[in-house]
Amino acid sequence: MEDKIIYGGDYNPDQWLDEPEILEQDLRMMKAAHINEVTLGVFAWASLEPEEGKFTLDWLEEIVNKLYANGIKTIMATPSGARPKWLSDKYPEVLRTWEDGTKAQYGGRHNHCLTSPIYREKVRIIDTKLAERFKDNPAIIAWHISNEFSGECYCPSCQKAFRGFLKKKYGTIEKLNHEWWNAFWSHQYSSFDQIDAPSNIGEKGTNGLMIDWKRYATEECDNFIDNEVNALRDAGATQPVTINMMYDFGGYDYNEQKNHIDIISWDSYPDWGFSESDIKPALEHGLCHDSMRCYKDKPFLLMESCPSGTNWQQTHRLKRNGLLPLAAIHAVGHGADSVQYFQIRAGRGSCEKFHGAIIDHTCREDTRVFKEATKTGELLLKLADVAGSQTDAKVGLIYDRQNEWAIDMSEGPRNCGEGYLEQTQKFYNALKRNAVDVDVISEPHDFSKYKILIAPMLYSVRGDVLERIRDFVKNGGTLIATYLCAMTNENDLCFLHDTPHDLTDVLGVRLDEIDGLTDEQSNKALTVDGAMGLDKSYSCNKICELITLNGAEPFMKYGEDFYAGSPAATVNHFEKGKAYYLATDLEDDFYKKFLEKVLADANVEPLVKKLPSEIDIQSRVRDGRRYIFMENFSREDKKVKLPKGAKMIIGDESEEFPNTSAKVFTVEE
Amino acid sequence: MEDKIIYGGDYNPDQWLDEPEILEQDLRMMKAAHINEVTLGVFAWASLEPEEGKFTLDWLEEIVNKLYANGIKTIMATPSGARPKWLSDKYPEVLRTWEDGTKAQYGGRHNHCLTSPIYREKVRIIDTKLAERFKDNPAIIAWHISNEFSGECYCPSCQKAFRGFLKKKYGTIEKLNHEWWNAFWSHQYSSFDQIDAPSNIGEKGTNGLMIDWKRYATEECDNFIDNEVNALRDAGATQPVTINMMYDFGGYDYNEQKNHIDIISWDSYPDWGFSESDIKPALEHGLCHDSMRCYKDKPFLLMESCPSGTNWQQTHRLKRNGLLPLAAIHAVGHGADSVQYFQIRAGRGSCEKFHGAIIDHTCREDTRVFKEATKTGELLLKLADVAGSQTDAKVGLIYDRQNEWAIDMSEGPRNCGEGYLEQTQKFYNALKRNAVDVDVISEPHDFSKYKILIAPMLYSVRGDVLERIRDFVKNGGTLIATYLCAMTNENDLCFLHDTPHDLTDVLGVRLDEIDGLTDEQSNKALTVDGAMGLDKSYSCNKICELITLNGAEPFMKYGEDFYAGSPAATVNHFEKGKAYYLATDLEDDFYKKFLEKVLADANVEPLVKKLPSEIDIQSRVRDGRRYIFMENFSREDKKVKLPKGAKMIIGDESEEFPNTSAKVFTVEE
Amino acid sequence: MEDKIIYGGDYNPDQWLDEPEILEQDLRMMKAAHINEVTLGVFAWASLEPEEGKFTLDWLEEIVNKLYANGIKTIMATPSGARPKWLSDKYPEVLRTWEDGTKAQYGGRHNHCLTSPIYREKVRIIDTKLAERFKDNPAIIAWHISNEFSGECYCPSCQKAFRGFLKKKYGTIEKLNHEWWNAFWSHQYSSFDQIDAPSNIGEKGTNGLMIDWKRYATEECDNFIDNEVNALRDAGATQPVTINMMYDFGGYDYNEQKNHIDIISWDSYPDWGFSESDIKPALEHGLCHDSMRCYKDKPFLLMESCPSGTNWQQTHRLKRNGLLPLAAIHAVGHGADSVQYFQIRAGRGSCEKFHGAIIDHTCREDTRVFKEATKTGELLLKLADVAGSQTDAKVGLIYDRQNEWAIDMSEGPRNCGEGYLEQTQKFYNALKRNAVDVDVISEPHDFSKYKILIAPMLYSVRGDVLERIRDFVKNGGTLIATYLCAMTNENDLCFLHDTPHDLTDVLGVRLDEIDGLTDEQSNKALTVDGAMGLDKSYSCNKICELITLNGAEPFMKYGEDFYAGSPAATVNHFEKGKAYYLATDLEDDFYKKFLEKVLADANVEPLVKKLPSEIDIQSRVRDGRRYIFMENFSREDKKVKLPKGAKMIIGDESEEFPNTSAKVFTVEE
Repeated sequence: MEDKIIYGGDYNPDQWLDEPEILEQDLRMMKAAHINEVTLGVFAWASLEPEEGKFTLDWLEEIVNKLYANGIKTIMATPSGARPKWLSDKYPEVLRTWEDGTKAQYGGRHNHCLTSPIYREKVRIIDTKLAERFKDNPAIIAWHISNEFSGECYCPSCQKAFRGFLKKKYGTIEKLNHEWWNAFWSHQYSSFDQIDAPSNIGEKGTNGLMIDWKRYATEECDNFIDNEVNALRDAGATQPVTINMMYDFGGYDYNEQKNHIDIISWDSYPDWGFSESDIKPALEHGLCHDSMRCYKDKPFLLMESCPSGTNWQQTHRLKRNGLLPLAAIHAVGHGADSVQYFQIRAGRGSCEKFHGAIIDHTCREDTRVFKEATKTGELLLKLADVAGSQTDAKVGLIYDRQNEWAIDMSEGPRNCGEGYLEQTQKFYNALKRNAVDVDVISEPHDFSKYKILIAPMLYSVRGDVLERIRDFVKNGGTLIATYLCAMTNENDLCFLHDTPHDLTDVLGVRLDEIDGLTDEQSNKALTVDGAMGLDKSYSCNKICELITLNGAEPFMKYGEDFYAGSPAATVNHFEKGKAYYLATDLEDDFYKKFLEKVLADANVEPLVKKLPSEIDIQSRVRDGRRYIFMENFSREDKKVKLPKGAKMIIGDESEEFPNTSAKVFTVEE
Repeated sequence: MEDKIIYGGDYNPDQWLDEPEILEQDLRMMKAAHINEVTLGVFAWASLEPEEGKFTLDWLEEIVNKLYANGIKTIMATPSGARPKWLSDKYPEVLRTWEDGTKAQYGGRHNHCLTSPIYREKVRIIDTKLAERFKDNPAIIAWHISNEFSGECYCPSCQKAFRGFLKKKYGTIEKLNHEWWNAFWSHQYSSFDQIDAPSNIGEKGTNGLMIDWKRYATEECDNFIDNEVNALRDAGATQPVTINMMYDFGGYDYNEQKNHIDIISWDSYPDWGFSESDIKPALEHGLCHDSMRCYKDKPFLLMESCPSGTNWQQTHRLKRNGLLPLAAIHAVGHGADSVQYFQIRAGRGSCEKFHGAIIDHTCREDTRVFKEATKTGELLLKLADVAGSQTDAKVGLIYDRQNEWAIDMSEGPRNCGEGYLEQTQKFYNALKRNAVDVDVISEPHDFSKYKILIAPMLYSVRGDVLERIRDFVKNGGTLIATYLCAMTNENDLCFLHDTPHDLTDVLGVRLDEIDGLTDEQSNKALTVDGAMGLDKSYSCNKICELITLNGAEPFMKYGEDFYAGSPAATVNHFEKGKAYYLATDLEDDFYKKFLEKVLADANVEPLVKKLPSEIDIQSRVRDGRRYIFMENFSREDKKVKLPKGAKMIIGDESEEFPNTSAKVFTVEE
Repeated sequence: MEDKIIYGGDYNPDQWLDEPEILEQDLRMMKAAHINEVTLGVFAWASLEPEEGKFTLDWLEEIVNKLYANGIKTIMATPSGARPKWLSDKYPEVLRTWEDGTKAQYGGRHNHCLTSPIYREKVRIIDTKLAERFKDNPAIIAWHISNEFSGECYCPSCQKAFRGFLKKKYGTIEKLNHEWWNAFWSHQYSSFDQIDAPSNIGEKGTNGLMIDWKRYATEECDNFIDNEVNALRDAGATQPVTINMMYDFGGYDYNEQKNHIDIISWDSYPDWGFSESDIKPALEHGLCHDSMRCYKDKPFLLMESCPSGTNWQQTHRLKRNGLLPLAAIHAVGHGADSVQYFQIRAGRGSCEKFHGAIIDHTCREDTRVFKEATKTGELLLKLADVAGSQTDAKVGLIYDRQNEWAIDMSEGPRNCGEGYLEQTQKFYNALKRNAVDVDVISEPHDFSKYKILIAPMLYSVRGDVLERIRDFVKNGGTLIATYLCAMTNENDLCFLHDTPHDLTDVLGVRLDEIDGLTDEQSNKALTVDGAMGLDKSYSCNKICELITLNGAEPFMKYGEDFYAGSPAATVNHFEKGKAYYLATDLEDDFYKKFLEKVLADANVEPLVKKLPSEIDIQSRVRDGRRYIFMENFSREDKKVKLPKGAKMIIGDESEEFPNTSAKVFTVEE
């Protein structure tokens, strides 16, 4: 996109138009901090169209041009994330209707009706005005559509759209009745017109209905995005478009939404400083970084992050010295081509006034945060070459949003939480401890480029995913599957007969029963004859499946309860490949040792050997050159030996690895 | 009802009408498991009347007949627990109005308006059709009205009915104003027309109003039941009718509802496997079994239970080997003439798809659960003679729903919970540890057949209960009363002057003050001169009443706080009987030792001597033959000596008592 | 007001009009307990106007006169705290509309619309009737307006009044938009007519809006009070008026409300007996007593307290022997000229039936509570001279309601609680442990009479408070300020440039950053060179500000995290005075030692030397005579040496100080 790492963030001069000396200071300080980009216009609608049909874009153009003249480009936002008061006063239909039928009053943001024709039209008009004004402006490098889309509207117009979605999907009401299993409780519909959205004052037990509602919400939001993108394109704007996504956001399936935009971007707000070590938030957001990168298998933008404490987390925890640049390098290592903040300057009032900013209320240029931001800007200049490089992970880890909906919405097998993300994170953390890159992917993703495919809790399967998994193993891949595997179809309708559906031969096991443990209970998994270099015994939790062998070899067995001695983990050889099945949730240490062995067997080499704990590592490649990024998230200094031939970009080549610092280097391959 | 233990459960072929091979398999497997009954038609309305006035009962009759031909009888349900979509679309009034005035949308179940004339009429019509079709069918052994009745509707029609209920009860508004103490906060009504149901957006402080609303809800549900029963009877059906009640359900007073049906049945879902020992859920559900039996002093049906884990509990905990037959025998021991499951076959979709079933999604006949169910069927065959036998407990334990409403709804004396059920359960557990049968009864129950009457927290008294208690003691009975005794009348209006009202002479004490302890606080009760073989000291909790002696002898005194030395437990001789008063909530051990002495004094013999812990025991009698049931709910083997002359039906006569097994034997008397 | 301590409480004969023998007993027992006052008519509207326009005041006059003839005077309440049913049936507008737009149904109390013209008129009429009847009755010593005002109404009429309030305050919508920082999220209004109250279904992020709504609610309630007072005055009543306030009630700013009444009164319900020591509730309510006294710098009335356990706390905890008189003396020591109870006699039904009363349901005259109340009455007779005396504290402690709103409503810097009251209480407790009197005051209070002014977390400043603080120090006063000082203006708009705003020279520091710790985290503050007799190290919690010295000397520095070594507490000399700044929240012990030194430096002498823990102390003065009150709230006996020349009024002059007892004595000055 740019031939350097984009460095900047959200900037709201619309809050300061009557204070020109503030805007002057902003410019001066941005330059000092090596900032080369701002995101303008988010939530600025009232400044752009203060009355219906009266457009005031001059101030914006003036600022864009002035910034550009000073080397700062703009990502231009459309303002649809919040509405001027006049809009909802005149057209109340644009406000959202909640699940219980309550009509929202004016206030907040991100709460417009998804289908309102008036709202779409008003958005189209302001977007058109923006595009007309800025389509040829060289300062504009991209369009940022609206802001952090979320939620659903339950108004009659949206209900109608939902029915249309279902009719398109199912064709006949009989098909829908079967897939949703509506004979249960006499809930059969005789026509699509009878269907309402799930509601806490109506239907909340029909899993198919609830999952399809989420799918519909995704599609309706896509339509909303399309309307905005079309407005820009129709007016002649050709710059790429993006939306800013969010950490582990379960409202929509981003894997569908990605197709409606050109670049992936997201907002990352780790819980830095909230616990003893920062490796935990680093790994949590590392998983999400990797997921964002894999949506399009391309570098993404880190659209928002916080230069200090946030206003909305449990508490405004400061970032210790060094953490701001460290987090920036961590993002770039995972595939970001930008480091952007919310926000450049802190507003004086309202609910985000205490959100950290590059320029805070003191208006001082000698603050610690500003120095840290400047240092970050300097480091990113050194990483300019990284921009545009790719990641070539050999391990694919499936974390699928639609599967998560099915697991979370189902009553049983464990209503105190099946822990889909937690299980996925356990695999992820163990892979990173083994110093390898990993792709975090959805069910429809291409598996063929991986040596190892990990599918935790692949409960609800859709499309041809099982076929592709079978082919993957058949062709020599190593599969790791776990409990709750291939139990229901995409509408959460249970498969009849043996499960894991269509995989009992690949995995060499079949499921008998699922024992859901309480949070206080556990079992033990005992290793068979020191298999795979594992310890003798691991605690197992949450779910213990009772399985029957169908050709697989057990390498762990349960140690307690009436099923003691029955298999807890197995391995099966299937055609050219190998398939592991973990029937239970094990403790962290198991995953580390287990994957160390599996990675070695599959010839997946670590990026560095003997990586100490609390250090994260990633790599990106281009033209035979591999960029390796290492971040010490510990509060203690560490030692690590770099590979021979490492050429340092950031940090030195000694074994010493000071706490809260990064090393970035290249190796030729 | 039948000359054997009924064995079967809910069966929903309406979900599988397009899969005849499934129905074939069901039949084959039911027979293999010794199943002799199914409950059909629960929630099947949409399959019976897919459009208004279009009735399709042939499929049902065909299945009934086919099952009957294979030795399986039917309990036929009316389908009123859930509605077809067309019904509420056409007649929205049938949907419930919630307490805050919100009108429910279509969805879920058990949520119809209680008084809607249209709904009652539509139910009458489908019930009539069912009765006409099945009244003479020999397969039908009973009618199961609707399903798990619960809740209240707040629509204008129900509000009006409530006013009618009150007018009938009180006659004049002045009487109601006095009983509800409406001068408080100027809440006097001048006419019955002014009264609304209690509501979280209206009145929630008037205790009389809130209790009468619960009474009204019970009566309105009774009317609804009557409407269904009348439809069946008017159409010529003569089989007995039942409703399926629920564990410790506080919504209605089942002791009133019992009069509208022929047989008591209920749904029992203990928390098996959730904690270290299963004796806890066994005793909790034992108390409820005994309560269900005592409503009509007749054997009852166990209408639902789960053959595996449920979908709705905290987690889907499997039943360990042996527990399924053990729970079945436990129910029969307590007076059940049936063991029935929800459900025979698991549905594929919607919210109950993971509820345990005899036939699960694997469709396999070799599952562990199916083997356990088959073993249970075999054992029940041995117990055929037990069907119809009675229980002759010598101890009555009052656990009264209306009293519970009064305690729970009152502000004070302890808003973190008075613990009525917990206190009752403490007495119950101690009685069972002492190996005696116990009747769990309501205030209006006949006390004359008991040697011992226990009345924990008999706070709110109605009818002539105090007179009957007085007569009971006068005639030589042993009474145990506790703190919070006879403080208010049936409308929660405090008695003036000394309490326990009308019992200060019988108990020989009067109440001065009530000290409510926090959950973290406790006092001590010290035994006077080793009285009654008790330990020196017991912890006391929750409530410590300060009482003055009025003739009674104290046998325990408080050990701490400013009332140390004042009486904590007393005994009084009154005419031919004896009355104990416990002024505080003591620890479990106290109840065991205390009751051991009281039972011995009253010549109530244990069923076996020296019963080990974690074993439950019950007996039933007929024609001089006593059937004794013992269940080892521990995970450890135990030893117990059987009485001489025991003839074994299940288990052997050795002292060895393997864990998770039962012994059933007879003794002649 | 009276030449003795008023002793009495709420009395509701309207609940017992048909039981004359009850009323006779009440009179007899009140006299026996030395009761000299009752509060009549609270919630009695339905007994005074049973139908619209039909007034029945004879019963009330008869009771007033009969009591007066027996030496018992009356505080007459207006009945507007609850409505007769006929009133809201005929005029539904009088019922409140909740924040989410729900219209309340009839029920409860304290829930009328604040602006309803009909309600105000109906209240005016009944108040006029009462005033006409009682204006010249010598029994009436004061008027008690309504009851425990609270809450807000969101109906159109109230919304309109809110807009009027804003227009009056801001004049132009541009000014409001700036102060509320409405450019954020495009929330600018173009006219006052567009503004709605904050709502959970609308706007909840605009801090200025939310704070102004609270200010409006205060003003609207004042208007309501004025309407009642005017009705009384217009009808010729001349007795003083009061409203009964509540413990730490955040709904309105009582410091504004005080101007609409003649006497401050409040309802005090400490958590006596809920934890090991009662010094904690004593200090909590001591702070509130002092706050009530300082609203008007005059003695106040203790309008309600509980003679036994309450109905509404966690549990009905009894008061141990001696606590009732102790709590009474504690109140008088803090400035109360009355000790009043809710209630004289317990009602038989509804939600407050288990609230403790002088006469309980036993109707007995020999109860422990009645004896304790009688003893209290005797002691208060000895304190008659105290009535009307003043307090002359040398220390002012700012606890400002509007500042609290700003802190609580702001998102950040610590969303798990900034702990404003907790921090204030820490200072308060340490002052009391140092045996000095303290005034608890609002921002607008006159500071000039103090030697020491403590301003914890003075986050949001209004009016000329900063100027007055500056003057206070300039003129030789000692100021103690803490973290979160002078950060925002009265509308929670952040000050730009250095903070503490306008105080960086006075305090000699400026704020850099705010580190919000989680509840689990802490830092350490290390004392510089044994400064001020402090310990070496104290734990610090919640918030650690990073500050830069601007002339001040640090006497404590942080011990941990990346800011270890930077200043945590400082002292600065400014003109004739001294200013301390505490940048963090420290543990209790710090405050005790720190204040001991500060008090000594400022020549503020303790009332007695070496006061043991768990004893509270206060003084009042008149004509050179100082009344000193000491209460031993411990459950252990203590020893304390009285000052020479102490003349005992209550207790003896020995060093022995029995638990749960008081000593009151005078010293001449």
